[in-house]
Amino acid sequence: MTNTLKNFMDEHILIIDDVLYSLVGKIIAPEQLKDSMLYSLKAGGKRIRPLFVLAVCELFNNKLKEAYTIGAAVEMIHTYSLIHDDLPSMDNDDLRRGKPTNHVVYGEALATLAGDALNTLSFGILARMENVPPAIKVELINLLSVAAGAEGMVGGQVLDIDGESRSLNLEELEQVHVNKTGALLRFSIEAGAVLSEASEEERRVLVEFAHHIGLAFQIQDDILDIEGTSEELGKTAGKDLASNKSTYPGILTIAGAKDKLAEHYEIAISLLEKLNGDTTILKELAEYIVRRNK
Amino acid sequence: MTNTLKNFMDEHILIIDDVLYSLVGKIIAPEQLKDSMLYSLKAGGKRIRPLFVLAVCELFNNKLKEAYTIGAAVEMIHTYSLIHDDLPSMDNDDLRRGKPTNHVVYGEALATLAGDALNTLSFGILARMENVPPAIKVELINLLSVAAGAEGMVGGQVLDIDGESRSLNLEELEQVHVNKTGALLRFSIEAGAVLSEASEEERRVLVEFAHHIGLAFQIQDDILDIEGTSEELGKTAGKDLASNKSTYPGILTIAGAKDKLAEHYEIAISLLEKLNGDTTILKELAEYIVRRNK
Repeated sequence: MTNTLKNFMDEHILIIDDVLYSLVGKIIAPEQLKDSMLYSLKAGGKRIRPLFVLAVCELFNNKLKEAYTIGAAVEMIHTYSLIHDDLPSMDNDDLRRGKPTNHVVYGEALATLAGDALNTLSFGILARMENVPPAIKVELINLLSVAAGAEGMVGGQVLDIDGESRSLNLEELEQVHVNKTGALLRFSIEAGAVLSEASEEERRVLVEFAHHIGLAFQIQDDILDIEGTSEELGKTAGKDLASNKSTYPGILTIAGAKDKLAEHYEIAISLLEKLNGDTTILKELAEYIVRRNK
Repeated sequence: MTNTLKNFMDEHILIIDDVLYSLVGKIIAPEQLKDSMLYSLKAGGKRIRPLFVLAVCELFNNKLKEAYTIGAAVEMIHTYSLIHDDLPSMDNDDLRRGKPTNHVVYGEALATLAGDALNTLSFGILARMENVPPAIKVELINLLSVAAGAEGMVGGQVLDIDGESRSLNLEELEQVHVNKTGALLRFSIEAGAVLSEASEEERRVLVEFAHHIGLAFQIQDDILDIEGTSEELGKTAGKDLASNKSTYPGILTIAGAKDKLAEHYEIAISLLEKLNGDTTILKELAEYIVRRNK
């Protein structure tokens, strides 16, 4: 990791976490519910999505207070999806980021409800942002609803489950990931552009950048499941192979998947050249999530 | 039921259903997910919450198109909460409104995801309403997020589960229901006032009306669980008693619960006298949900 990216992360992650925890901490709700929500929020996520919101806002020299709230909203959605995905009726995972999953600690009922509450809260915090015109809040809420719901992340999860019982082709697999993981990453990047009132063209370029980075990110995830160890990953490695799940390496071989990853990564980076302003952080963040080993 | 109320219901329920089904029907998502969402939306709910939105809007002579969308949003939240409540890890109910519950038909994973998708979609349809100023949409989204989330419905559900393992006193039981069932009813009534741009005072009176009607509704629910039959209710009767759940009849006796219900009902009705305009429908809807036998 370069010093530039390290400084960017050091500067923002503490604030992202503070904002996130205080937004949950201050609601008036049963303590065990808040504990369960905070447990998963505090379980050591990399805050990639909030960092992308902030990176785009910095590109446009936009003030950042509201970017943290948007980052918190998308992190709540991401976290709720992990809690529900880990449930016994879904992926049945006991371990996430090296820690027991939410339902292992709080039971299935509370884990389900903590996920529901995080999903719902994310829209409320966008609605309550200060110093953002209502029309922009409405646009952000609409984008988040589409990205997180049946047309985005939840729909992708359904396709993913479907892909466990039959072999997907490359196009279908791409469809899974454009929705399951791509939609929220795209939201993060597009939301930064919307908040900064970027031009149509700038927004279009950033959305396309998000598309390719999202796919590269997912291909790396599939590769790590094969090449990584459980200890490095903080979750069970080799699960995809064991469950006959359709993956990029499964369809393209490991070498083919790596080529595909490089292809998406290069397209993404070349798109950044179309933007004015300093895109160093966006480029390095992209590189970071593609080169990561966990 | 009076003819006035019957005509009101006949006029609106078909449109409520049409709007609801078409809002789900037109999203681009995996078919099995849409099927699962529509299955529970079509399972024969009484549409009480959308009818209250419409009744309040009629009181203020407000045009109704957007009231149907708000009604659809609250019905989506209500329906998702039933899907998740019925899951084996929660109430473990196989029967709802006389039909197999969502997870019995679609499996637990898809039922969980259909609930998640309905939760998320409700905020998107509010954001996409036409002919509503953005500031009003933002206010509605904020109210719905608070009513449906940890501070409202989901929080109430957590308290309710807590109440299964220990005896609640009357105040605690009221707290459960103010949140678990009251919050969404209150949202429906308050949303009608917000959309109609009612005065602060009118809104305050309606919110208080909603509070008492919500409690009366829940007390009737507890009474029906004892006095109704499974056939009438379309769900398993006597469940509360069998599970040692804290209920109004359990704390107050059946006669005491009926007195309490009458008390809340009378306060609610007397509040309506403070409002200008024709409150007949609101009064009859209130009577309908309190006198219902299922």
